[in-house]
This record gives sequence, structure tokens and C-alpha cells, in this order.
Amino acid sequence: MAADPSIDSAANRIRIVLVGTQHPGNIGSAARALKTMGLSRLVLVAPERFPHIEAHALAAGADDVLAAAPVFATLAEAVADCRLVLGCTARSRRVALEEHLPRAAAALVMARAGEGAEVALVFGRERTGLTNDELQLCHAAVHIPANPEYSSLNLAAAVQVLAYELRMAMLEAGEAGGVATSAAGEPASHAQLEGFFAQLADTLDAIDFHKGRAPESAMRKLRRLFLRTALDVREVRLLRGILADAQRMARLAVARAPGEAPPRS
Amino acid sequence: MAADPSIDSAANRIRIVLVGTQHPGNIGSAARALKTMGLSRLVLVAPERFPHIEAHALAAGADDVLAAAPVFATLAEAVADCRLVLGCTARSRRVALEEHLPRAAAALVMARAGEGAEVALVFGRERTGLTNDELQLCHAAVHIPANPEYSSLNLAAAVQVLAYELRMAMLEAGEAGGVATSAAGEPASHAQLEGFFAQLADTLDAIDFHKGRAPESAMRKLRRLFLRTALDVREVRLLRGILADAQRMARLAVARAPGEAPPRS
Repeated sequence: MAADPSIDSAANRIRIVLVGTQHPGNIGSAARALKTMGLSRLVLVAPERFPHIEAHALAAGADDVLAAAPVFATLAEAVADCRLVLGCTARSRRVALEEHLPRAAAALVMARAGEGAEVALVFGRERTGLTNDELQLCHAAVHIPANPEYSSLNLAAAVQVLAYELRMAMLEAGEAGGVATSAAGEPASHAQLEGFFAQLADTLDAIDFHKGRAPESAMRKLRRLFLRTALDVREVRLLRGILADAQRMARLAVARAPGEAPPRS
Repeated sequence: MAADPSIDSAANRIRIVLVGTQHPGNIGSAARALKTMGLSRLVLVAPERFPHIEAHALAAGADDVLAAAPVFATLAEAVADCRLVLGCTARSRRVALEEHLPRAAAALVMARAGEGAEVALVFGRERTGLTNDELQLCHAAVHIPANPEYSSLNLAAAVQVLAYELRMAMLEAGEAGGVATSAAGEPASHAQLEGFFAQLADTLDAIDFHKGRAPESAMRKLRRLFLRTALDVREVRLLRGILADAQRMARLAVARAPGEAPPRS
């Protein structure tokens, strides 16, 4: 159970899986990272040394998370009941997996967990990450966009970043008055976002927003704004519905006074 | 200098200040966290033990960040030339500082650094944080919204979270084709956001978006969407400009056919 009463039960369907961890201290630090972010389900796959005094030392007050962590021999067993498995990779180029940034991954995880599915976020070995066979068990990859010249995030630091994004997604869901089930939906695809941007550009033309100015500047700012928001599918639908009504009003205004406001292509 | 060529020089105006750090290992881990996120300016204020072999051990390949870190006796000296100083606090209730979430803080830091200002992000002691006198030197506070029942983030983990948000803000700036100077501007105030939401609600009425449905549901979703985006002042102005033109078109449409689409209050 999550120790934080503000966290919905969706959090209890999210497991963080550490595969083949070499340093027991990292297991303890990961447990601490989880608990600070209101998560509690740590799962270990073939850790090199566990239980270990160093894991408990670094867990600080998160010993309960360590004590509750099941240990499996293989990743396949650890995620057997999961409907979504995301694998953290330094680079996923080795396999043909869709790759998400941490924020989008957190939205996806919360969406699935909110629907009642068991979800796993998988972290590989300190030096070598996940094997190709292990990555094949993942439905998508998560990539923390680290400095390409020095991308060696500590394992616990990577867990901390993902756990932080999960907590932000949970808090946003709670803040909006809903439970996590209706919070962050499935992330919009690239094509859905481009469809929205195309309609947004058309709408700006229709309502004569640019007034002779170059349209690129406004659209660049709007793209930046909406891309960083990680829109979900329903939000794109909502925004496009609003644009459709604005376009309809603009057509009415123009149709009723064709001489005053010429339609734009 | 940032080791990552994709990072704008704005990153070089951001210093991460650790005050009174007790464990040298945390200094090393913080250096590593910075470097993985493309930051390089670590500043130390009265560390208990430094230089120390443990700091270098945990810095992994970030020894250059450690080696370049200046050491000051007081926070006042360490931030003397800074135009923005943000202090990380578990809770800022002790002083009357405005409090930002990490994402909004990163936007603020990038905005100021992009304008050419020296900016500091300050982290206090492992157990006791920043003193009241030190907090008085800060212009605002940053709060990582941890599990209230277990909020003891490791110092390096807190640095990692903030450094990650700074990197995301930098990448967003770069992705949008601009330099960081024009990237994330000053965060919109509460009043500015509420002004925008009020105009958005009026516009939905004007374009007859609800069509008899309860308007609360759409507005709740839109509030959630735009609140999590951490809009800046210029973005609010841009969005309100678009709404104004949509409202103008709707008025034209209605004025020209008053019998067909009655104006709404």
C-alpha cells in the first residue's frame, strides 16, 4: 500500500523492477526513491547480492519497501501478469521499441494503471542495462535524455527521475479533482498531434489572427507549448472540437459578409 | 563549460549550490547528477569534509565538475553576483517565500539565465536544510512534492530531480528552434492564469461549444491541461490574443444574423 493517503490505488498497480542489480546499495537507494514519491512496489530480478546490509543502510526509512520486495529469477516471471511493461534504456536503438520520454511514459503508466492494469517499469544492470531478450519483453522503452557525452546516470538516480514523473502525474490527477483512473489518458500519437497542429494553423487563418504577420512565429510557440504538455488522446479531441466551433463561427461571419472578411485558404 | 554541445550557454549561468553538506559522497553524487544533465557549475558552501576520497569515488566520471567547484564560507558570498536565487526546501512555511514546483522553477531559472543573469539553485544540509538566514537570501523556494509521510529525499536525489527538469527545459528550448533566451519566459502568475481561464470560458460560450452540455467538464479538463503546462507570461498573451480573435469572429457571426445565433452573456 502507498503510505501517502493522497495517492490513488493506481499507484499500487505500478511495480518498479530492478534486473540483475550489482550493488545492493542501489537497491536500497531505489527503495528510498520510490517511497519518497509515494510508490511502494519494488520487485527484484536476480540481484547479485540481496538481502544485504548496504541495501538496508541506504534505504533509510524505506525498509518496509525492501522487506516487501519479491525476488524472481527472470524478468519474464516478474512481469508475467503485467499488461504494460516499459524498459528504461540508455538507448533503445538495439531493438525496434517505441521510445518515450519520462513524462510521456509516466502518463502512459498512469493511464494503464488507472484502468486497472498491472504495469511494470523495468531498470537493467548498472553497467550493461537490459539484455536484448529482456527488452523483447517490454512493450516500449523509456529514455531519460541525458547529456550524450556523459549519460551514466546512477541506477537510483534514474529510478528517482521516473518515480518523480509518476508522482507529478498522480498529483495532477488528484489536483484536477478526479481519481487517477480519469487522469492522464493515452498519450496522443505523433500523427494525432500533427493533425491538431494543422487544424490549429487553419483556425488561426480563419479567425484572421496573423493580420499580415508571419504565421510561423506564433505556430512555433504554440507547438512548443502543446508538445511539452504531453497531450493525451482525449485532450486532443477536446481541443480540436473547440477549434472546429471557432472555424464554424468564422465561416458564418465570412459567409454573412463576404465583402468584409475574405475567406483565406 | 557544459560538456554537451546541444546545451546553450544559458546552462553556464546556472550554478548549483550545496550548503553545509555533511557527507562528501553526496557532493560526488550531486556532481554526477549535474553532469548527466548537461550542467557543470557546482558551488560548495562550508562543506563538512571536502575534498574527500568519497566525493571523488561517487562522482564517477564527473571529477571535472568536482575539481572546478569553488568553496565559499557563506551562502551570501556564493550567490553575491546572482540575480535569481532559488532555495530548495522540504517546506518553505518558515519564511514568506513564493514556492515553485520543480518544473516551474526550471522555467524561471532558464528564463533568467537566458536573459544573461547569473542564477543559483541552492540545496541545504542533509538533515536540517537551509537556515532561516540562508532562506532570506533566496528570492523564491522550490519544493519537490514528496510523499508527506516520507519526504526524506536524499540530497543527490533532489539535485537529480531539479537538474532533470532544467535539462528538459533546455531541450524544449532547443527543440523549438530557438535559443534558451526566448525559450521559457517568466511563469504566468495565478491572476494571469485565472484571467486566461475566464476568457477561455467566455470564448467557449461565444462559439457555442457546449451546445447544452454542462460547461464545467470541459473547463476542468482545460484547466488541468494548461495548469500542468506551466504557461509563461508571453504564452498567456498569445493564447488570449487567439481567444480575442475567436470572440471577435463569433460576435461578427451573431451580429450579422441575430435571429439565428443569440448572443450569450
